[in-house]
Amino acid sequence: MSKLDESEIIKIFQRKLGCKNFVSEDVETFKSSKPNIIAKTDTLVESTDIPPKMKLDDAARKSVVACVSDFAAKGVKPQYGIISVNFPSSISRSKVEEAASGFRKACNEFGISILGGDTNAGREVVFNVCLFGNSDGIVPRRGAKNKDLIFATGPFGYTAAGLAILLHKKKGRRDFVKKAIQSTIHAKARNVDFGVKNKRYFSSAMDSSDGLSTTLNEMAKQSKKKFVITNSPHKKDVEEFAKSQKINQDKLVFHGGEEYEFVFTINPKYKQIILKNAKSLRTPIIEIGHVTTGKGVILQRDNKTIPLKDKGWKHFR
Amino acid sequence: MSKLDESEIIKIFQRKLGCKNFVSEDVETFKSSKPNIIAKTDTLVESTDIPPKMKLDDAARKSVVACVSDFAAKGVKPQYGIISVNFPSSISRSKVEEAASGFRKACNEFGISILGGDTNAGREVVFNVCLFGNSDGIVPRRGAKNKDLIFATGPFGYTAAGLAILLHKKKGRRDFVKKAIQSTIHAKARNVDFGVKNKRYFSSAMDSSDGLSTTLNEMAKQSKKKFVITNSPHKKDVEEFAKSQKINQDKLVFHGGEEYEFVFTINPKYKQIILKNAKSLRTPIIEIGHVTTGKGVILQRDNKTIPLKDKGWKHFR
Repeated sequence: MSKLDESEIIKIFQRKLGCKNFVSEDVETFKSSKPNIIAKTDTLVESTDIPPKMKLDDAARKSVVACVSDFAAKGVKPQYGIISVNFPSSISRSKVEEAASGFRKACNEFGISILGGDTNAGREVVFNVCLFGNSDGIVPRRGAKNKDLIFATGPFGYTAAGLAILLHKKKGRRDFVKKAIQSTIHAKARNVDFGVKNKRYFSSAMDSSDGLSTTLNEMAKQSKKKFVITNSPHKKDVEEFAKSQKINQDKLVFHGGEEYEFVFTINPKYKQIILKNAKSLRTPIIEIGHVTTGKGVILQRDNKTIPLKDKGWKHFR
Repeated sequence: MSKLDESEIIKIFQRKLGCKNFVSEDVETFKSSKPNIIAKTDTLVESTDIPPKMKLDDAARKSVVACVSDFAAKGVKPQYGIISVNFPSSISRSKVEEAASGFRKACNEFGISILGGDTNAGREVVFNVCLFGNSDGIVPRRGAKNKDLIFATGPFGYTAAGLAILLHKKKGRRDFVKKAIQSTIHAKARNVDFGVKNKRYFSSAMDSSDGLSTTLNEMAKQSKKKFVITNSPHKKDVEEFAKSQKINQDKLVFHGGEEYEFVFTINPKYKQIILKNAKSLRTPIIEIGHVTTGKGVILQRDNKTIPLKDKGWKHFR
C-alpha cells in the first residue's frame, strides 16, 4: 500500500463531503441571521474514545453526534461545521475514505454544511469537530427550580453494557448482546427538533454524554438545588444483564457515559404538553425525579435514600 | 508526582485563562454585530509541530499565533476562541500550567476572549484552537489581477534555519544561531491591524505558514494567473548561513514554512499608501514580484527564469 500524501487526503475529504472548499481558504465564513452565535468543539481520540470493533466511519459519525447532542440539549440546531483530523502517516486510503464517509453520513443526517477543515499527521487518529448555529438564547444548565420535574431521553445502560461485553468479555442473551454492542459502536443521536421545539419549556438542560450521574450532579450544582431521582431510566433487559454478569446496575445506567441522551427539567404544569410533543416527535422520554431545596443528587429506591455521586466519565482517570 | 485528574486540569485552565466558563456549559455563545462570521480551526500536534527545545507555553502560543495569522491575512481581527487540548495521562501539573500560561499569553497579546474548551486524554499533546471574528468580507486567495504587485511581510528563512540547526546540527554565527532558534521556538506574529486596516487595498492575500512557495502557488492557481518573483524576501545573514552550511538558500526562504507572515497583491496605484501604512504600523513588507497572464510561479534571478514549485510543508510526507 503506497503512502498517501496530504493533498490526496484532502481530495478524499473534498469528494466524499461534497465540499470543494475543504482547505481552500485561510478561514471559513458563514452568515448568521441572529446575533447569538452558538459554537461547540468536540474531540474524539483514538486511544480513549474508539472502542474495539468500532470502524472509522462510526467513529467519525460519533464525533459529530457528540457535538450535535450538546446542541440538542440546549435547544439549538447546528448548521455549519469545521472538521480537523489527525491521521498517523501510515494510514491507508480505505481508512481515510471510511472516515470521510462517516463525516458525510453524519452531516447528511443532521443537515450540517461542512465549511472546511484541515488534516494533520499525528501518532493516533484524532477527530475534532466544531459546529455552529445561532439562537435567541440557550437553555442553561443552571436554571432548575424547586418542584420542577426531571426528565431524560433514554433509556440508559446499553452503551456501558456493550463496552463491558467488548472490553471485559461479559456475556448476555444474544439479542441483548447485539443491541448493546450496536449502541456502543453506532452512536445514537436524539432528535434535535425535540430540543429546539421544546426549549421554551425547559428550565435547565444538559447533554448526558459524560454519564447520567455527572450530568445530574452538574445541573444540581449549577442550579444550587437537590435533584431527587425516583426512577432509574433503564429497561428490564439491562437489569437482567447486570444481575447475570454480577455488574452493579447503577454503574451501567448512571455512570456509563457515551450516551447521547439529554436531561431536562420542567415546571410540572408543562408535563402534559412535553409528553405529547415527545410522542409526536418520536422521542422517548422518561420522568426520573424532581427538584427540591438542598444540594447534591439522591436516589430513592425501595424506601431507601442513597447519594448518587458523580462517577461518570473522567479523562485522565 | 501524582497523576492529575480532569477536574484539576480544567481548574488550572480556568484559573490561568481567567475563564470561569472553561467547561461550564454544553456549548459556547458569542454575539456578532455583523452578519458574516469568520471561523478558523488550527491543530498543533506534538510529534509533528513541536520541535526540540520548544516549551509547552511556546507551543500553546504558537497554536494561537497560527490561527491569528490566518485571520490577519484575510483582514479580520479574531475576537473569541475555543481551546481543545489533549494531554497524555502521565502529564505533570507544571506542564499543564505551562500550556495554560502560553494560551493566556497569546490571548492577551491578541485581545482574544476564551469562551471555553475541553480537555482530553490522548497519546500525545494536541492543541486545537478555534477562533472567531466577524467581518463585512474577507480578502480571498483568488483575486490577483494582471500587473498587480506582490508583497510579503517578512523577511523569510530564519525559522527553517533554526530547524536545520536544532534537528540537523547545522552551525552558524552565534548571533545568527540565536536569532534563528528564537524564530523557530517562539512564533512571531504579524500585526493583525496591518491586515485589518489595509484589506481594502489587497486584491488577494494568504497566510504563508505552509511555506512561501506553497502560498504563492496556491494564490496563482486560485487567481488563474502567473506570479513572477523577482526579489527573494531574505536578508544577507540567511544567504551567508545557507552558503556556509551548504543548504539551498531557496529551500530556507521559499520552502520552510512555520513562518506566520502573509503574502498580498495590490494594484500598483496603492503602492505608496501601502508602504506608508506599513511604516506607521511597524510592519516590515517587501515587494517580491508581480502578477501576469499565465499560470504557476516563476523566479527571475540573474537573468534566468526558474519555476518555483510548491515545495512547502506537507503533512504525511
